[in-house]
Amino acid sequence: MKLIPILSSLILTTGAAFAQQSPIIHDGEFNYLRVQFGDAWDAQDAEIDAKLAEIREAKGGNPPNFLYILIDDISFGQMGDRKMNYVMGIETPSINQFATEGLSLMRMYTEPSCTPTRTAMLTGRHPVRAGVSEVKVALVGEGLPASEVTLPEILKEVGYNTVHVGKWHQGDIEQAYPHNQGFDWAAFPLHQQVQLSLMTPEAMRANNMLGYVPEGQNNQFLLDERFKPYGLVTGVEAEAGGTALEVDMFPGEIWTQAKYEEMNERYQRQALEQLERAAAEDEPFFLQYWPLYPLNFVYADEPLSRNGGFHADKLQLLDGWIGDLLTKLEETGEADNTIVVLMADNGLMYHYEGTSGLNQLIYRGGKTQHLEGGVRTDAFIRWPGVIEADSAAGDIFHVSDIYTTMARIAGATDHIPRDRIIDGIDQTALLLNGEGHGRRDYVYVYEGPVLRSVVKQEFKMHLPAPGQPGAAAPTFNIYRDPRELHPLVGYSLWAGASFQDMIKRHQKMIAKHPHSEIGRGIPYEGIDNLRPESELTRDVFMGWQN
Amino acid sequence: MKLIPILSSLILTTGAAFAQQSPIIHDGEFNYLRVQFGDAWDAQDAEIDAKLAEIREAKGGNPPNFLYILIDDISFGQMGDRKMNYVMGIETPSINQFATEGLSLMRMYTEPSCTPTRTAMLTGRHPVRAGVSEVKVALVGEGLPASEVTLPEILKEVGYNTVHVGKWHQGDIEQAYPHNQGFDWAAFPLHQQVQLSLMTPEAMRANNMLGYVPEGQNNQFLLDERFKPYGLVTGVEAEAGGTALEVDMFPGEIWTQAKYEEMNERYQRQALEQLERAAAEDEPFFLQYWPLYPLNFVYADEPLSRNGGFHADKLQLLDGWIGDLLTKLEETGEADNTIVVLMADNGLMYHYEGTSGLNQLIYRGGKTQHLEGGVRTDAFIRWPGVIEADSAAGDIFHVSDIYTTMARIAGATDHIPRDRIIDGIDQTALLLNGEGHGRRDYVYVYEGPVLRSVVKQEFKMHLPAPGQPGAAAPTFNIYRDPRELHPLVGYSLWAGASFQDMIKRHQKMIAKHPHSEIGRGIPYEGIDNLRPESELTRDVFMGWQN
Repeated sequence: MKLIPILSSLILTTGAAFAQQSPIIHDGEFNYLRVQFGDAWDAQDAEIDAKLAEIREAKGGNPPNFLYILIDDISFGQMGDRKMNYVMGIETPSINQFATEGLSLMRMYTEPSCTPTRTAMLTGRHPVRAGVSEVKVALVGEGLPASEVTLPEILKEVGYNTVHVGKWHQGDIEQAYPHNQGFDWAAFPLHQQVQLSLMTPEAMRANNMLGYVPEGQNNQFLLDERFKPYGLVTGVEAEAGGTALEVDMFPGEIWTQAKYEEMNERYQRQALEQLERAAAEDEPFFLQYWPLYPLNFVYADEPLSRNGGFHADKLQLLDGWIGDLLTKLEETGEADNTIVVLMADNGLMYHYEGTSGLNQLIYRGGKTQHLEGGVRTDAFIRWPGVIEADSAAGDIFHVSDIYTTMARIAGATDHIPRDRIIDGIDQTALLLNGEGHGRRDYVYVYEGPVLRSVVKQEFKMHLPAPGQPGAAAPTFNIYRDPRELHPLVGYSLWAGASFQDMIKRHQKMIAKHPHSEIGRGIPYEGIDNLRPESELTRDVFMGWQN
Repeated sequence: MKLIPILSSLILTTGAAFAQQSPIIHDGEFNYLRVQFGDAWDAQDAEIDAKLAEIREAKGGNPPNFLYILIDDISFGQMGDRKMNYVMGIETPSINQFATEGLSLMRMYTEPSCTPTRTAMLTGRHPVRAGVSEVKVALVGEGLPASEVTLPEILKEVGYNTVHVGKWHQGDIEQAYPHNQGFDWAAFPLHQQVQLSLMTPEAMRANNMLGYVPEGQNNQFLLDERFKPYGLVTGVEAEAGGTALEVDMFPGEIWTQAKYEEMNERYQRQALEQLERAAAEDEPFFLQYWPLYPLNFVYADEPLSRNGGFHADKLQLLDGWIGDLLTKLEETGEADNTIVVLMADNGLMYHYEGTSGLNQLIYRGGKTQHLEGGVRTDAFIRWPGVIEADSAAGDIFHVSDIYTTMARIAGATDHIPRDRIIDGIDQTALLLNGEGHGRRDYVYVYEGPVLRSVVKQEFKMHLPAPGQPGAAAPTFNIYRDPRELHPLVGYSLWAGASFQDMIKRHQKMIAKHPHSEIGRGIPYEGIDNLRPESELTRDVFMGWQN
């Protein structure tokens, strides 16, 4: 049982008035839609406020909890669907079942890679606005800047407990760590899976990571001992505002596939523990679990799936783990008042197609690419009694909309900053009223800092080469040509101009609210028990900087 | 209410004994499986006979009816699946619903084109064995030979009424017509949709059929007036053993898109009428409805779908029609004792990707190709109370298995000929006992007369160039690489030899039972009301022959 936080209750009832005083600054394209639909949306918003208050009242005044599960590098269609299970030779019964219990967002757009998608969800903004691109595997001295106002930070303002478990990938500097970005407690690896599951002797022997393992060949002419990243920090744990401790790794120890598997098992165990703990508290919780699996580059000794590929097999394993987590949520008694979001961060890591067991399928492309295969993912949202079970929506959704929508539902909209552009659209109307009530019909698709595509309705323009007119840009109808293989000049001739107008609206807002810079600092600050090899690696890295 | 035909009842109880006296001649690979599983299958077959008798008894002694709906040129995943509906921007609620009412065959293999798939289903044999390839659009003087023993012919032996409505595409000679191949009544076009939906002024103006329409350009140097096919017979109707009459086409009349649409509507109407009529008879029925849609090459004046492409839109239209047919079946009271099969004949007609609204998606390739996208189709089988609702099977099935399995269920196995190879495997065990009870783990994939691929379990070998060793053949794991893009030598090195053994087993049986020849004759014989332009076309065609 939870008590209603009086503060957040007040905000819920008065939020609309505040919002009118100081509206969220949205991108030009949304303002363009507001000109067309603003009055209707305002009227609808009054109804939604009433409905949200009613829902909360029915739960004894408790706002809903959030469980946000983000799967790594899985393309649209590869989870939650029996037919695709058969295509792939895997079984994901837990996710398939979960998919039937809520709303399937059939046009969820993410950013095309891990870091940017996660930044977009955490900040409600295209990561380019904070100078964030994909964070590289070795030391960078960069990360999510403290100046960003994250979703857990604004949820904390209305009384939520916040927990992060698993992949983080927002940088190796202290300000970027989750416990400094709004999470009460966090367990996370400092870097990402290239370190954790490829920089191992096993991955070299599996023929997947070539040339990395120092012992892999004779190094008689070696000078630079840091060209091959070495001595990187692995997993750490910390409380909000505190310092971090690296866990399960001792000075001189070699990271192995076995340790990677133990790390995955640990995060799964911690996700279960944290869920149980958070559910027992009086306050509502925001728990995010970002598994490292299915990324894994060594064949299992005991494969689970008919596929047996090193990614596909771990996807099937992860399905069971997610099932366990959802069962645990039931056991806590909080399932009915918990919004569960399950989605992927971007398309598959197509680089290992053929042996990983995951392959480009419905959409073309994958991780790092602006193609639909890079930025379209499965996304399922369950909110028992509120979101219709086994429903689906063809409305466009962007991962940054999670931020604004969750904030609205939690009664925290007023804590969204008003001094910067917020790309995330409030999509509460879509969740409550269903398909056709989305408020977005567009997405700007970046690869790192470069705008590569613009999506509007069923059309998508790949940006033309610099200086080329819009009519020369490849333009696709993604219903008729989902794999973006047949650009038709018949579309470009009219849509090129419309897309260029959209880009102008986007650029004008950037001119008005220029991008800020990525956070910078000394890697590994705020970790108390750095291993000597990590200290040395940092010193070499910083030595060159100064 | 139907009466039990005494003859078929006798056959049902004595069939097993007959079958032992003279077993069906199967391909070498099946015999290779029988060496491994024959005893177990024989024991299972005794149980299946008992179960079939029990089912029949529960229906007052009436054997089940068959409604066989074959959709043209739709790739795997493009019907019966909400997720793919969203990808494509279409809605197919009737087929989606139907898919949940029975068994989804997740590995149904067809032949890669219309004529051969339909021949395989009708004869239970790879069409190459009867010399059948794709029948061309204009006059050919060829077709399904009378010597083939079709499924309707053997069903008639046990008392079924048989009806064919829609596309036929088995040749333009009298022996090939459906009413001479086992159907009591048939309504069908003589040729196929290139004639019916592309050789029109509208398709030329839609920029889809180029150069065909005689008035499309100045023809000042014209000699041969038959290079552009002309005066072809359109739709005919006939009773078994009788002569055919062309309907709805008058001498001198120009075939148009409007007439094509009327033809489609007529076949739909006739399918409904024939279903109602057949259900009212005392005998069980075998009704096959092979729609011409979704093939269509002109944008609709009033599009139905969000996609709007000229194939996709008609697929959505067809979904409603199939819903109407299934509703009609309910109304007749025969739904509970009718096995309904809904499937496609081969992959999409990828040649019009981009504007047709259908596109290569999960699998690569389409019509005419040995790739999975050419020969994998959706297939759903409903048998209320017998086949588990909302079930699925990953076992391999080939379209020729329909023949042998339907015959078994109808108690007509003894009428399957014993003087030739039957490729169709009896898959009754799979239907009755569910996934894992299939009796096929292989398929030989032909393009016309050429063996192009061999499938075994999850592996597929594309045949190497002549003279190349098996280890040089591209070999794929289609769970890990469904789009057949990453042949791995690691597979070829062991599987090349195993696949070559399979091909030897196949070739040995061909040597023992050589292919017969396609039927030959004078086009349009047996049509009573040939238009003068059709007579002239035939005379020019035959004049050169003689």
